[in-house]
Amino acid sequence: MNNFVFQNPVKILFGKGQISKINEELPKEAKIMLTYGGGSIFKNGVYDQVKSAIAGFNVIEFGGIEPNPKYETLMKAVDICKSEGVDYLLSVGGGSVLDGTKFIGAAVEFEGNDPWEILTSGGSVVKSVLPIGCVMTLPATGSEMNGNSVVSKMETKEKLGFKSPLIMPKFSVLDPECIATLPDRQVANGVVDSFVHTIEQYLTYPADTPLQDRLAEGVLQTLVEEGPKVLADKSNYNAAANYMWSATMALNGVIAVGVPQDWATHQIGHELTAFHGIDHAQTLAIVLPGVMNLKRNEKAEKILQYGERVWGITEGDKDQRIDAAIDATISFFEKMGIKCRLSDYNVKEEDITNIEERFKERASALGEHSDITWLEIGEILRSRV
Amino acid sequence: MNNFVFQNPVKILFGKGQISKINEELPKEAKIMLTYGGGSIFKNGVYDQVKSAIAGFNVIEFGGIEPNPKYETLMKAVDICKSEGVDYLLSVGGGSVLDGTKFIGAAVEFEGNDPWEILTSGGSVVKSVLPIGCVMTLPATGSEMNGNSVVSKMETKEKLGFKSPLIMPKFSVLDPECIATLPDRQVANGVVDSFVHTIEQYLTYPADTPLQDRLAEGVLQTLVEEGPKVLADKSNYNAAANYMWSATMALNGVIAVGVPQDWATHQIGHELTAFHGIDHAQTLAIVLPGVMNLKRNEKAEKILQYGERVWGITEGDKDQRIDAAIDATISFFEKMGIKCRLSDYNVKEEDITNIEERFKERASALGEHSDITWLEIGEILRSRV
Repeated sequence: MNNFVFQNPVKILFGKGQISKINEELPKEAKIMLTYGGGSIFKNGVYDQVKSAIAGFNVIEFGGIEPNPKYETLMKAVDICKSEGVDYLLSVGGGSVLDGTKFIGAAVEFEGNDPWEILTSGGSVVKSVLPIGCVMTLPATGSEMNGNSVVSKMETKEKLGFKSPLIMPKFSVLDPECIATLPDRQVANGVVDSFVHTIEQYLTYPADTPLQDRLAEGVLQTLVEEGPKVLADKSNYNAAANYMWSATMALNGVIAVGVPQDWATHQIGHELTAFHGIDHAQTLAIVLPGVMNLKRNEKAEKILQYGERVWGITEGDKDQRIDAAIDATISFFEKMGIKCRLSDYNVKEEDITNIEERFKERASALGEHSDITWLEIGEILRSRV
Repeated sequence: MNNFVFQNPVKILFGKGQISKINEELPKEAKIMLTYGGGSIFKNGVYDQVKSAIAGFNVIEFGGIEPNPKYETLMKAVDICKSEGVDYLLSVGGGSVLDGTKFIGAAVEFEGNDPWEILTSGGSVVKSVLPIGCVMTLPATGSEMNGNSVVSKMETKEKLGFKSPLIMPKFSVLDPECIATLPDRQVANGVVDSFVHTIEQYLTYPADTPLQDRLAEGVLQTLVEEGPKVLADKSNYNAAANYMWSATMALNGVIAVGVPQDWATHQIGHELTAFHGIDHAQTLAIVLPGVMNLKRNEKAEKILQYGERVWGITEGDKDQRIDAAIDATISFFEKMGIKCRLSDYNVKEEDITNIEERFKERASALGEHSDITWLEIGEILRSRV
């Protein structure tokens, strides 16, 4: 096991009816900006529940934060926060709204010239952030219980992440009843996103960490079982609750302690979103099988363990079992309604060159061994056409 | 899944060499009381490592905190803290030292007449606590990452627990190298204590919580595999690390969210320690098989799941599989070197009457269904003579 430092102070309020408790978590004297996205919270009743809970608080609203939240949009909220003296942010929506709100909180307090530096620095320039509360309506990103955020810049077609413990929410409400009104596509995306978050922290090489392995496998198995149940009946409260808590546990740091991590699938996927606007989870479903196949030798031991413990694959020689594990992964994504080939999204082989070029410019190598170069990224993407 | 609120802000510094970092966690201006137990930290080098790390800090020492820390001893530390103006506590030792230190921190700040009320109230009277840092040298109680403490009063032979988020350590250092010099008995006790903590939060009735179930099973499986490895070679760093992190995860709240809990074994076991001085883990090894057997019908579904997933028991009818799961549990405790019968500790059937009387007086019923009365407690103990 590697040495590690772990601290996650986010307060989780989980279950039906918990939205009504947020007034106990917010400081009475705060000037609050309530942030949200495209307006689904008006249709599913969450907006009304939130407004009812915070009646009497001093609140302004900022809506319209997009999926893959845009720097250009978020900077408008930053200006309003500054001019209105906002000192608390309340994010009501999915991971994009919360990621955007995290950036707003950091940018309001940022003292440099160009707030985009928050992203290009990976978060190291973040020294102070407005306090953030969260009502998470779409389980997927784990943003409700971590210090991560991903923001896109339209001007340059960039999608970058930043990290800081300062952007962790003070509290997050997780009410599984929010799932009942989600579109199928968002449930499918959320389950696959959570699944691949877990894979990125698990499918590397053995590090003699049996507990972390089993916790990760527990998240994967639960998503495999509960994901299709939720898709079949989104008002199945227990299935929704199990999916929702799995999504949080997938990326709150618990399964990550002391183990090697990969994240190549995410980094390659981000470029597919940046260049082609493909949903984040869809990009992961495209890229992951390619990474697994290309790194089938380096990852062999963990792929075999994953195949056996998550999918019950015990027959065949090593290569056959690895192939079966990759196939089972693709089948699961397809069962959730997500297509796994670049051609399904009209990305052509020639489009891959742009992505290759970007990684070539960055001169960074991805994966748990930092050995996936731009050449191999091209190979992975070409294998997924 | 039941609704839940979860928050655990304890900062964990895990791995070899982390003791040297504690100076970064302590406020420079603090007046620190370094608390410890019987002096093992002088033999294993931990005292020297700690003193070296905090050279230049203003520190006084209080040693001699016993296993099952005694109210009478702890109150001496409380007096010293008050007279010396101590404003930070640094616990260096095992769970008993830390539990005692948690009580000291609460009692120094307690404004009522009788600090024992902290225990009899279960912690509800705790409004303020001195900040606590921890170097955990003996994985067992999980105290390093929770808000629990258990204290014994010699005068009345009482052993009671209290809880408060305020007694959670600000930071806890977990260095698996500390395990290398532990006596076999403490390793055995620590593994069994951690195992039974997990069982208390798991072996109840199905609540449609597949993730929590698998996380608990992951802790149990890891302890079953790694416990004997540590006992065989305490300098096996990886095994020690896996045991150490399992002990923390067993009782930091993660596996407890949203599920029913039992704790009857602990509550009955506490009385065996209070009356007969039996080691805490030994009392659990004695009592748990009796609870499992008496509640074999109410707990049937979870015992069968436990038997299959942790012990691979799939043969036989329901009763045979339950018997096999109980037998496997006893065998594991015995493999760790812990005897599981009251007669192994010279407790006689007539001694059970005292314990029955105490539960009769308290008129409380134990277990996840609150249906284990004093009569059934007597039955459980008589089955374990």
